[in-house]
Amino acid sequence: MEVFAVEGVPEVRPGDDVAELLVEQADLQDDDVVCVASTIVSKANGRGRSLSSYEPSGRAERIAATIEDIADEEKDPRMAQAILDECEEVLVEAPFILGVTKFGHITVNAGIDRSNVPGADLLLLPEDPTAEAEAIRDGIREHAGVEPSVIVTDTSGRPFRLGQRGVALGWAGLSASRDWRGEHDRDGRELEATVQAVVDELAAAANLVTGEGDGGTPAAVVRDFDFGDHAGSEQLFRDPEKDVVRQALREWSHVRD
Amino acid sequence: MEVFAVEGVPEVRPGDDVAELLVEQADLQDDDVVCVASTIVSKANGRGRSLSSYEPSGRAERIAATIEDIADEEKDPRMAQAILDECEEVLVEAPFILGVTKFGHITVNAGIDRSNVPGADLLLLPEDPTAEAEAIRDGIREHAGVEPSVIVTDTSGRPFRLGQRGVALGWAGLSASRDWRGEHDRDGRELEATVQAVVDELAAAANLVTGEGDGGTPAAVVRDFDFGDHAGSEQLFRDPEKDVVRQALREWSHVRD
Repeated sequence: MEVFAVEGVPEVRPGDDVAELLVEQADLQDDDVVCVASTIVSKANGRGRSLSSYEPSGRAERIAATIEDIADEEKDPRMAQAILDECEEVLVEAPFILGVTKFGHITVNAGIDRSNVPGADLLLLPEDPTAEAEAIRDGIREHAGVEPSVIVTDTSGRPFRLGQRGVALGWAGLSASRDWRGEHDRDGRELEATVQAVVDELAAAANLVTGEGDGGTPAAVVRDFDFGDHAGSEQLFRDPEKDVVRQALREWSHVRD
Repeated sequence: MEVFAVEGVPEVRPGDDVAELLVEQADLQDDDVVCVASTIVSKANGRGRSLSSYEPSGRAERIAATIEDIADEEKDPRMAQAILDECEEVLVEAPFILGVTKFGHITVNAGIDRSNVPGADLLLLPEDPTAEAEAIRDGIREHAGVEPSVIVTDTSGRPFRLGQRGVALGWAGLSASRDWRGEHDRDGRELEATVQAVVDELAAAANLVTGEGDGGTPAAVVRDFDFGDHAGSEQLFRDPEKDVVRQALREWSHVRD
């Protein structure tokens, strides 16, 4: 399996055709997995925002004040409002805002980016990353006549472990997970690790070669990845009612109120 | 960057030299990152256990009964005892046991494996995966005269997102993370995603090619990974007192008691 960055993609502007920009820079193949940073998808979709367009609610003011108070970090109430607008549910208000985006992804600050956003203060995540992955896949087919899989990726922190890692937000052309249920080990015992989140692992592999900052590239290709002969699962985000940690955070927040 | 499985590693037995088994099957190079499944490290270290060697405490009996009750899943109290023995702290007792291993890794069932363990009921995680990674690295140098980096890996679930993914438990020869703090985006703004957990991303990439079960291989090599000119950080597990989710789980458990 080979992983390489797509070099030479220009700064993306609202209205740009991401698929076209990618096929101009990379000779894609049918079995490739193309990992595309959500930043360029958002830029093409015009998801840049200026802080001045947000009118903070009382809740946003209160959250910003609490964060300033307990995290000793300056928090613009308009930024808090932008985050609230992107969240279906807020799990933790302080010392950071941990929320569930409308498409089900749980991350700090609703994944809103404040770096690498020319001409805007903020860059929101795409509204529907799986629809975007499908559209990019269709566009690649149209422009280059090949049909690779596409993953829209982000970098995100996580509980328990320090640091960010690449994650999948949306995907097209492959399943989210390899499902090993019913398969057996060498001794014939049923396997315990039953579902493997391959789209997240592919996003993590891509993140190793793309990098951040002024030397960063917004896309990478995974070539010769073999999904193998396994059942697939399309669900990547846990069912809220079965997610014990999410439930615990929700109940913990209420206890603190 | 290339990622390939190390094929042909035989079933590992207590006392085996993992480094020797690896260099017999793969032509390793200085800049490689060798990702070794913790299962074979544990097997070489004699970490297989039989359930009958555990005498369940009252707490283990209570936890097993609670899990049977609320998760409708048969739980052997001796298994609960094995998990308690491996944990420095238990964060959630039911519907599953989520604990912190003595080396700081937070995972369900203390990462104890019940598949792929010939001649034993259980396989415990290595006691000190970073020391094991260092020992394997030393062994590879001794046997093959090259000095690749080594990561001892596992697969593990996570909050919020379904499925398992590869993670690093211990590492040698490279830093846990790339630290981007102080670096800038194309517009000169300071970067927000400041620490990238590369050892976890490498473990995830490796997991894409190794697989589970009877066709699985216990090691993979990442070749031509470029860490780049960044500061490194050695810490992968969050400081307990700064981990909001861990604190919330702890307080939530007390509320439920």
